[in-house]
Amino acid sequence: MDFHTDFKPMTVQPQEIERTSLATITAEIGDHPFTEEQYPIVQRVIYATADFELGKSMVFHKDAIQAGIQAIKNGEKIVTDVKMIHVGISKQRLDKYGCKVKVHISDPDVIEEAKRLNLTRAIVSIRKSVRESEGGIYAIGNAPTALLELIRLVKEGVAKPSLIIGMPVGFVSAAESKEELAKLDIPFITNIGRKGGSTAVVAAVNAFSLLAYSK
Amino acid sequence: MDFHTDFKPMTVQPQEIERTSLATITAEIGDHPFTEEQYPIVQRVIYATADFELGKSMVFHKDAIQAGIQAIKNGEKIVTDVKMIHVGISKQRLDKYGCKVKVHISDPDVIEEAKRLNLTRAIVSIRKSVRESEGGIYAIGNAPTALLELIRLVKEGVAKPSLIIGMPVGFVSAAESKEELAKLDIPFITNIGRKGGSTAVVAAVNAFSLLAYSK
Repeated sequence: MDFHTDFKPMTVQPQEIERTSLATITAEIGDHPFTEEQYPIVQRVIYATADFELGKSMVFHKDAIQAGIQAIKNGEKIVTDVKMIHVGISKQRLDKYGCKVKVHISDPDVIEEAKRLNLTRAIVSIRKSVRESEGGIYAIGNAPTALLELIRLVKEGVAKPSLIIGMPVGFVSAAESKEELAKLDIPFITNIGRKGGSTAVVAAVNAFSLLAYSK
Repeated sequence: MDFHTDFKPMTVQPQEIERTSLATITAEIGDHPFTEEQYPIVQRVIYATADFELGKSMVFHKDAIQAGIQAIKNGEKIVTDVKMIHVGISKQRLDKYGCKVKVHISDPDVIEEAKRLNLTRAIVSIRKSVRESEGGIYAIGNAPTALLELIRLVKEGVAKPSLIIGMPVGFVSAAESKEELAKLDIPFITNIGRKGGSTAVVAAVNAFSLLAYSK
């Protein structure tokens, strides 16, 4: 087989791709309601999804940015609802602060308990994360049941996350779960409507580790 | 801590969520250019992203559906460009056919070769997959460089994939790489424009294993 090892299909380098992409987003986004602090998170979500509508549907609690940066600098855990988000989060910068990324959805004890209680694994894995330790960034992009359970535990005073990034996607309960999140008076980031998902949540978390690293 | 174990935040079961979601998509999609065979793939991509615009931007080679189903039934490999797609693909049905899901982006020899040749790891990992064996479904949702390299190797007669699902996302080269893919006369699925991404590609691959399983 013939592999032309001198072949360079891209004339631009990764840093150049990033710079061009971020500049394009700023040139095209138009009017938006975001503060200077919030905008880099929105920009990274749009970079990852090429979806201005999704980015512009984002909603921030007033303390969200500072809370997220501080949580990372404190070395708090980052809890995800699904493995795709766990895998997508860049670990290199987080390691510097001692932040661990955790997902319990496939833990044998979670699977067993979900069966026993007839609950979704998403719910039981959130309970396990809350039980393990206080604080942390909860990054939920898939399961409305996980987000609703976390909101319930916050309301009951059982869960005390430092920041909730809640952007589950879908046609049933996703939008409703995010409306519930937006009613909380603790640091959250969410979006309005059906869209969301793993890619958006990964981009938001990675944007936070860039912010923490640069401040 | 107080966990109400009798708490059921969702009144609907997973099968019910799926049924309702798929019916909502069919009710809302309106006019579209897809055949009866292609529609289930589009529907699953919309289900995973809640993005009708993305779903409706999809483009199919005329043989794509049959080629994908046949590749799975033959137990061919599924090659992904990033770990998020690898993790997101449901392995249970694929295992029945002996299909293995492969991603080489973090293999030590790939990292070493990329440095030595001053190429992206995405390019080198696609070369490794092509070298390993013929055929397979290539599921690319992130790196335009991976897709462009695969297209180049197809044109040179070096790569002979059974199906390319190429939907990289982004502001630089993503749309262009998909336009190049759509010119090939081998089975492909792609979409027009900047959108795409891991979630969409995972949904398409999982839709294929459902189709293979049901036929």
